[in-house]
Amino acid sequence: MKLTPNVPHFVTAVKPIEAGRGLEALFKPRSIAIVGASEDVTKIGGRPLQFLLKYGYAGSIYPINRKAAQVQSLKAYASVGDLPEAPELAVVAVPPASVLEAVKECAARGVRAAVVLSAGFSEMGEEGSRLQEEIGRVAKSTGMRVVGPNCLGAIGVPDKSIATFSVALESSFPEPGPVGIVSQSGNLGSYTLRLAAERGVGISRMLTTGNECDVDIADAIASLASDPGTTVILCCMETCRDGAKLQQAMAMARDAGKPLVVLKVGVSEAGSEAAASHTGALACSDAVFDVVLRNGGAIRVPSIEQLLEVGHALSVVGPDQAPRGHKVAVLTASGGFGVLLADAASAQGLVLPKLAAGTQERILSVVPFAAPSNPVDMTAQVSSRPEVLARILAAVAEDPSCDALILQSANAFHVPRLREVFLSALEQVRKDHPSRLILLCARAPQDVRARLNAMGFPTVEGIDAACATLAALVRFGARQQARQPAPAIVRAPLHAQAFATEASAKAALAEAGLPVLKEAVVQSREEALAAARDIGFPLVLKIVSPDIAHKTEVGGVVVGVRSEGQLVDDYESLLARVAQRAPQARITGVLVARMAQGGTELILGTKKDPIFGPMVMVGLGGIFAEILKDVALSPAPVNEVQAVEMLRSLKAFALLDGARGRPKADVQAAARAIAALSRFAARHADNVAEIDINPLVVLDAGEGAFALDALLVPEIPEKAKP
Amino acid sequence: MKLTPNVPHFVTAVKPIEAGRGLEALFKPRSIAIVGASEDVTKIGGRPLQFLLKYGYAGSIYPINRKAAQVQSLKAYASVGDLPEAPELAVVAVPPASVLEAVKECAARGVRAAVVLSAGFSEMGEEGSRLQEEIGRVAKSTGMRVVGPNCLGAIGVPDKSIATFSVALESSFPEPGPVGIVSQSGNLGSYTLRLAAERGVGISRMLTTGNECDVDIADAIASLASDPGTTVILCCMETCRDGAKLQQAMAMARDAGKPLVVLKVGVSEAGSEAAASHTGALACSDAVFDVVLRNGGAIRVPSIEQLLEVGHALSVVGPDQAPRGHKVAVLTASGGFGVLLADAASAQGLVLPKLAAGTQERILSVVPFAAPSNPVDMTAQVSSRPEVLARILAAVAEDPSCDALILQSANAFHVPRLREVFLSALEQVRKDHPSRLILLCARAPQDVRARLNAMGFPTVEGIDAACATLAALVRFGARQQARQPAPAIVRAPLHAQAFATEASAKAALAEAGLPVLKEAVVQSREEALAAARDIGFPLVLKIVSPDIAHKTEVGGVVVGVRSEGQLVDDYESLLARVAQRAPQARITGVLVARMAQGGTELILGTKKDPIFGPMVMVGLGGIFAEILKDVALSPAPVNEVQAVEMLRSLKAFALLDGARGRPKADVQAAARAIAALSRFAARHADNVAEIDINPLVVLDAGEGAFALDALLVPEIPEKAKP
Repeated sequence: MKLTPNVPHFVTAVKPIEAGRGLEALFKPRSIAIVGASEDVTKIGGRPLQFLLKYGYAGSIYPINRKAAQVQSLKAYASVGDLPEAPELAVVAVPPASVLEAVKECAARGVRAAVVLSAGFSEMGEEGSRLQEEIGRVAKSTGMRVVGPNCLGAIGVPDKSIATFSVALESSFPEPGPVGIVSQSGNLGSYTLRLAAERGVGISRMLTTGNECDVDIADAIASLASDPGTTVILCCMETCRDGAKLQQAMAMARDAGKPLVVLKVGVSEAGSEAAASHTGALACSDAVFDVVLRNGGAIRVPSIEQLLEVGHALSVVGPDQAPRGHKVAVLTASGGFGVLLADAASAQGLVLPKLAAGTQERILSVVPFAAPSNPVDMTAQVSSRPEVLARILAAVAEDPSCDALILQSANAFHVPRLREVFLSALEQVRKDHPSRLILLCARAPQDVRARLNAMGFPTVEGIDAACATLAALVRFGARQQARQPAPAIVRAPLHAQAFATEASAKAALAEAGLPVLKEAVVQSREEALAAARDIGFPLVLKIVSPDIAHKTEVGGVVVGVRSEGQLVDDYESLLARVAQRAPQARITGVLVARMAQGGTELILGTKKDPIFGPMVMVGLGGIFAEILKDVALSPAPVNEVQAVEMLRSLKAFALLDGARGRPKADVQAAARAIAALSRFAARHADNVAEIDINPLVVLDAGEGAFALDALLVPEIPEKAKP
Repeated sequence: MKLTPNVPHFVTAVKPIEAGRGLEALFKPRSIAIVGASEDVTKIGGRPLQFLLKYGYAGSIYPINRKAAQVQSLKAYASVGDLPEAPELAVVAVPPASVLEAVKECAARGVRAAVVLSAGFSEMGEEGSRLQEEIGRVAKSTGMRVVGPNCLGAIGVPDKSIATFSVALESSFPEPGPVGIVSQSGNLGSYTLRLAAERGVGISRMLTTGNECDVDIADAIASLASDPGTTVILCCMETCRDGAKLQQAMAMARDAGKPLVVLKVGVSEAGSEAAASHTGALACSDAVFDVVLRNGGAIRVPSIEQLLEVGHALSVVGPDQAPRGHKVAVLTASGGFGVLLADAASAQGLVLPKLAAGTQERILSVVPFAAPSNPVDMTAQVSSRPEVLARILAAVAEDPSCDALILQSANAFHVPRLREVFLSALEQVRKDHPSRLILLCARAPQDVRARLNAMGFPTVEGIDAACATLAALVRFGARQQARQPAPAIVRAPLHAQAFATEASAKAALAEAGLPVLKEAVVQSREEALAAARDIGFPLVLKIVSPDIAHKTEVGGVVVGVRSEGQLVDDYESLLARVAQRAPQARITGVLVARMAQGGTELILGTKKDPIFGPMVMVGLGGIFAEILKDVALSPAPVNEVQAVEMLRSLKAFALLDGARGRPKADVQAAARAIAALSRFAARHADNVAEIDINPLVVLDAGEGAFALDALLVPEIPEKAKP
């Protein structure tokens, strides 16, 4: 498992972002209007009303129906304008063609937030998209927040505020609790709610954002980050429409000390294509999402089941219980389960260190034929001798060699006699070690599970699920520790001249701190000789021309120039070759540069992501990046510590670290170069689209790292694009 | 996903193996004796008797108890010798010190199989191991099969034969069905049984083998392979004590057309260490296990939950329904779930091809705003219009571009109205396409699930679990198709002279079909010149000495000899250098060999696995094998098709396949070399422990592949080892 420190993303807000602004009305409105309220409880205009009445919402409910005087036994109004007061929340459930008008009326009447449940917008084509944009504009111009359209709406559990038609509410209302759910997909949100109910996880709020004409997933996260009743945020995400706002919302959750657990779908090519077509949003590389989420302190999980398990665990453990590392002790009453858990834990990047000698002795003093190392096999003695569990649990809990414990039992909590033994041992260890994280991998009846959870023990049934959950808690713990302030970077466009040639690009980068080897652009044989005397042999010669992108293809590069005589010959023949092969090119000189000898070649670059801005990438040259896709990625800028982490995360890092008898490479110098390039990319993000440093040669430790070639690609303004 | 064809393992049985011999008595005995029968139903001698009585075993039950005249209301006997007949099965539940005597008595009385439940043997140390070996010897010498000791025993469900004290039987007896369970760990076996009960999976037999003094996991598999009542075999495996027998058992299952689903634990280093200490068996690399299981046609799964899901699915689908490829169509009523499924399917190596244009048109004709490609989003129309599902399902089922379908629904089977729509659509598609595999990713009440299963639709609740299950069915289908006859290889020791030098090793390998470049061993400068004229320049010179293993270290290699003059100089200086640096070494000549130019270097080798015999390995030279662990492995011998598959499975295969503008390498020649080496290793497994070909240089397509260096490591006989 990689424990990458938190890399704060560079944000220069043109206008202040206020993620989550004005969304309180969604969750605890004093009054709710249902626009398009229906008598028919199978209709989307009937169900929210039915739910509000059934579950006992205490505020005022105003059905709006042009024709009926009463809806579901409540007095109905012909329009929002006719209401005796401005409702704080409006649920809009009218045909798509009438939605814009309804939204405008709501805004005019002073409604604070509207939830548009109606479908038939951008998901239906261009016409729908235009209508949807109109609705978004009403929100922007009036300040009334609009959720949807084509969404499953919102639920405020404590206030029984219901602006949804989710079938999940047909059978029961969510139990109140500290877990909030946000989702772009209504179906995924609704399914999460259903799983939560089955799992016994209490809910604070739910918000699904659908087509996101105004309120987006970032707003949704922010609205839970600022809710005192929510301590854990679960998020199903398909896309992001505003990278900066998402980063702000993640920062809000982090600052509030609330874990944000994210199921980001669209990981695979097939999934990502489906997500782009489904959401109509810009496709964004999952790798970029991954690093942005990680850097924002979010805990990413791969499945909806894990979203719930991790959410449950985080709602049970206190913030001081988050493990400080990934070392885990496993306790079982069975060798077979111990092996299975060791495998599952290892697969999740957890490590099972050998327990301290003293701990092992203590275990053996309780059960002489136990396996005392790790996994600990307490043997079936656990079932026959009540003191065994308590004593072994105490021994392991007191051993500082592990950051967390997993106690597994296939059936202890189902057998009444064993259950009490287990409960009293766990009660004791909780008393003695209040902040020790002990995760129970066990099946238990609902009431027993509730008792265990109340004692601060997360319970997970499956072996893989238990280890995945613990690994997520470890990631949460690591990110809590790794917070770093964002470096302040002032954004400024790069001067146009820098883009002209390799030499000008290198000069601009060198000025920004990226090391380059000594070099000079010369116009004559004499200048070349003078430069050579200054720089020293061996040398490389490269043609300098704003018209030649691929110098090698026109014979515009000579390497290994080792003497003045050779220099003169090579200089002339270089110019002659280029003149012949690229007769139209303007030649502005020849670059004379020191030739690097030895070292390991990295490729280093930056590229602007359409949603999240400049990203910096590094990998080993040659086949590694290209064939093995062994590349590390991060939002720019990164500092040196983070750059070292990026290098260490490469599979081929061993090649920089002295593998196969090589000398160790100057990793620090490479990291300085990465950090400098990333700052440069962040500062000049307005007009630099892409930077390629190929190669950055990394010499032996202490000897530096140098950019041998550099290409700056300018950002083409939208209007100038073909 | 790799679909490696089945590679049959080379077996030369010294004595005929009979995996599973004589185990029928475990599952359908006409009479059972309980040695150590107890009145106390919490004791291991009380529970089997209690279970037999409770669940109504129809045969004769004989409690054996030295003191009591009656046990649990049955007439008891003082010893097995006193019984009126020889019981077919004996359950031994006496203290460990009395077990040997009890087993001997059983054998003497003519018992056919004994299950030793008692613990306290090899798991307790050396004393216990010795006792256990004694018991094993009784089994071998008398022919009575012995299960255990320290095991959870056996259950024959149809005959209600119970030789276990598993707590899983406390609440209920397994429902009869076609799924058999075998496990080394009693706890894992018992847990699997419990999950099966919860999952509604019917069971035929269960056998847990514990310490395996006689009956081992291979016997257990074989006993289910030959049981007409078992159609699917689930296996929890920690280790293997007899590789050849396991391979025989796997072949039996394959020949019987029964899928063998294996959870092999001890994958990780931590898990593998724990397994070795827990089972007391030889540690065996998980990579070797993996390829042996794959080649044997077993379907490996990573978790106990998946063991059950895959077992369930295989018990529901007919053998003709196994998919013929890994292309899958996904149908949902929600874009979000479609994306989630696309991700999960891709993660399992499944592919979602675009559906045929005609299919897409048919889908759009049903729901104009559906997403018709793949995943198919049928939209919420599925809920409101009954014909939608049937028509879209028919369209996709008739599209040959997919090998299988996944139909997902979060709640259709819980809503009565929707349920009937879904059931009738599924009934129709089953009628029209009886062998189309359609897996349902859905939650459903138990009775509805049973109906769906009876119609031949496997049902899985979770998204990840559904895709993993389908991937396992794909692996099963691929292996059914890929069966190949095992090549016949006659085993013979390699002549001792071959081990002497590089030249003799190469000569032996060349004779066996491994291509080497032209070379000669010379004794004089004149012979060297004559050899050079025959071979042609450039040349390599290498010292030949039985005393020098690492030629480079004593200056014993010269490369790039390009002329006769250089040859004479290099020949003399080579001998001089070696004489100085290794004065004691016997020099038997100088190897003059053609120098290979260009090409890609592979490392190729074989090594004898202690359990599974000779394995062949191949990887790219340099950092690939060493740092990136990019190596392919297979039991020897392999044929050329299999060798190509090994090469293709390498992450760096692109380097042989024309990546980055290189010419394509002679992959066929490399495959011929791998196959030849693997046959050589198999033939000479008696006295060849290891072979290293480093490098095998692979030239451009059509130009061949050649072993440039070869080392044969002889097998040191057990008694000669230090």
